[in-house]
Amino acid sequence: MAAADEAQGFRPLDEASLVAYIRATPALAASLGGRVDDLAVKEVGDGNLNFVYIVSSDAGSVVVKQALPYIRCVGDSWPMTRERAYFEASALREHGRLCPDHVPEVYHFDRAMSLIGMRYIKPPHIILRKGLIAGVEYPLLAEHMSDYMAKTLFFTSLLYNSTTEHKKQVARYCENVEMCRLTEQVVFSDPYMVSKYNRWNSPFLDKDAEAVREDDGLKLEIAELKSMFIERAQALIHGDLHTGSIMVTPDSTQVIDPEFAFYAPMGYDIGAFLGNLILAYFAQDGHADQTNDRKAYKQWNKHKDGNGEAYLPAIYNNPELLSDVQKKYMTGLLHDSLGFGSAKMIRRIVGIAHVEDFDSIEDASKRASCERRALDCAKAILKGRRQFESIEQVIVHVQSVNHD
Amino acid sequence: MAAADEAQGFRPLDEASLVAYIRATPALAASLGGRVDDLAVKEVGDGNLNFVYIVSSDAGSVVVKQALPYIRCVGDSWPMTRERAYFEASALREHGRLCPDHVPEVYHFDRAMSLIGMRYIKPPHIILRKGLIAGVEYPLLAEHMSDYMAKTLFFTSLLYNSTTEHKKQVARYCENVEMCRLTEQVVFSDPYMVSKYNRWNSPFLDKDAEAVREDDGLKLEIAELKSMFIERAQALIHGDLHTGSIMVTPDSTQVIDPEFAFYAPMGYDIGAFLGNLILAYFAQDGHADQTNDRKAYKQWNKHKDGNGEAYLPAIYNNPELLSDVQKKYMTGLLHDSLGFGSAKMIRRIVGIAHVEDFDSIEDASKRASCERRALDCAKAILKGRRQFESIEQVIVHVQSVNHD
Repeated sequence: MAAADEAQGFRPLDEASLVAYIRATPALAASLGGRVDDLAVKEVGDGNLNFVYIVSSDAGSVVVKQALPYIRCVGDSWPMTRERAYFEASALREHGRLCPDHVPEVYHFDRAMSLIGMRYIKPPHIILRKGLIAGVEYPLLAEHMSDYMAKTLFFTSLLYNSTTEHKKQVARYCENVEMCRLTEQVVFSDPYMVSKYNRWNSPFLDKDAEAVREDDGLKLEIAELKSMFIERAQALIHGDLHTGSIMVTPDSTQVIDPEFAFYAPMGYDIGAFLGNLILAYFAQDGHADQTNDRKAYKQWNKHKDGNGEAYLPAIYNNPELLSDVQKKYMTGLLHDSLGFGSAKMIRRIVGIAHVEDFDSIEDASKRASCERRALDCAKAILKGRRQFESIEQVIVHVQSVNHD
Repeated sequence: MAAADEAQGFRPLDEASLVAYIRATPALAASLGGRVDDLAVKEVGDGNLNFVYIVSSDAGSVVVKQALPYIRCVGDSWPMTRERAYFEASALREHGRLCPDHVPEVYHFDRAMSLIGMRYIKPPHIILRKGLIAGVEYPLLAEHMSDYMAKTLFFTSLLYNSTTEHKKQVARYCENVEMCRLTEQVVFSDPYMVSKYNRWNSPFLDKDAEAVREDDGLKLEIAELKSMFIERAQALIHGDLHTGSIMVTPDSTQVIDPEFAFYAPMGYDIGAFLGNLILAYFAQDGHADQTNDRKAYKQWNKHKDGNGEAYLPAIYNNPELLSDVQKKYMTGLLHDSLGFGSAKMIRRIVGIAHVEDFDSIEDASKRASCERRALDCAKAILKGRRQFESIEQVIVHVQSVNHD
């Protein structure tokens, strides 16, 4: 592995070699105001997959992220293609073009080195998950995230693009298949079978985890979602849009880490975000925020000038029909989002990767009771998702489960 | 156009240059037993898109098919990529590997010349559509076509292949986008709007054609199918599997012309075949044949040894669950097939390309009454497809419409 990587021009950086790399790279030096004589380097320790450095001069800061050929938090026993950095840089650029307010700029990308230099998202920005755990309210979050999802998903779908443009991009992102497979395994497979990677709050949730593995109704639904996730190239999704991929202040929302990006169902992103908000709600018995799906309608009506041919104006030629067809599309999207969102909730309770929202509850028995409610809620939504007609109904359902 | 084609090494053949080409091409010469001194060339005039020649020596025959950079039956006013020949050759080879009994062998492919040399399907084989019009019964047709569809669709889907293999092939066939767009236009768009390409049995069906263009319920359904057709990479489909793409004798069934092949919903192929059988039924008031969807179950159970991860044995781990999940998958496939099949019926009555089944009925008024029944039947199935649970129920419905 190491030899092949070296032959491709790859070498893992440390703090010293990073400084030399920055000095030799005009785009990175420029992002530091050209003041590269005295640089401070801080490694951000909480990256699951990659090495992330904040590099500062007296004129500014930049983030440098390098993908290694394995998963950082597991080690080289779990190899993972470095090409994820290429897809992350591509998605950051594409989503950044569509929604510059909520995506950091990429200053520099080095494919051989699997290295991205991007805008430093300054304090007081923190990871949204930590803010939610601390009980901070983010009054603009719903508006910002709706804006981000509406723009990134709508403008990379057949609602806006011609089939020719769409298929070209689909083909390109097909190569990010290793990340697709990782998601398949940890979201759609492992939680429903015996796997050495699964973890849960034992012994409290032993029976609950077993019940997931023996729930045929759940397995019928998850199979459909898994195939849809792989087969359906609806839009360029972020692919990992949980509350740990979002940095916030009360005024600003920034989405990072789209290394799982490829063409897949829109509902996977929307569901990831909603599902993680619901997890936060169950963890803190607080109030989940919500997205505003009217955003998407607005995009649709505003951008009739695109190349999208999915709904030709010559066919969808009266306001009532246009409204009906939009409602049908959005209802389908709601059901997809609820399906994927509940799958994401389940895997955070009985699968490999858990969330700090629950993990930070020290009393394991109290934690188990929160987790169980979230799990039961997710199972009910996954099986009954087609009964919901609006996000308001979902919120009522979630609240009723939590207050039983 | 011509200059660019020439620069790529392309030249359209005529009978004389074809003979020279064959003599210079060992694979083609071999298919003629090496006896290339005295060759007979017959152009098969009924190709809609391409030039097709039957070349014979005293030791055998071969079919040579060349794609020109436009649609043959329209002329160079409708340009069409020659690369369709590459995808046709690729699909013939892939489907031929999976189902050699029902797909002719490719002996030679020349990408620069957009030229395929393939097995000559000997008399008494005729085009299935002509046999159906003549009222010939094909007792093995259902068995053969079930075998063909089960093998070509199952073994190119996630039911058998890993996501890695699947996405690689999906990316490759994304380039056949021009053929995808042609289908979009003639099947999913034009029949539902005013288009210069639409034709119908006028004046008899004037109101019927108008009713299709003003049927909001129909438009809601067709939008969903159109997006699914483009977005959902379920299996390597033939893409044009009507009764004119099948050559038959009572003992043999051969599927030709897969130039529309790419990864799309399985139901599009199954629906095309069923829809065209139903058209034949309405045209002759005879009895439609039927596919036997149990074939697919058999494939599934027999080929658990594949790389397919869509239904991991560790999750789908009891016979009842496996049976339930297969039933769910097959019911979804039935509904997709009925949706696509009825769309294919509608477009053959009010869209650009009609079928000989109806066109050969000389009395226009009698023809109109057959066409209207088929059209009404298709509209009802398209809107109500989710109510059907088996192909037997569909057949009962079709028969009831025809005998009203």
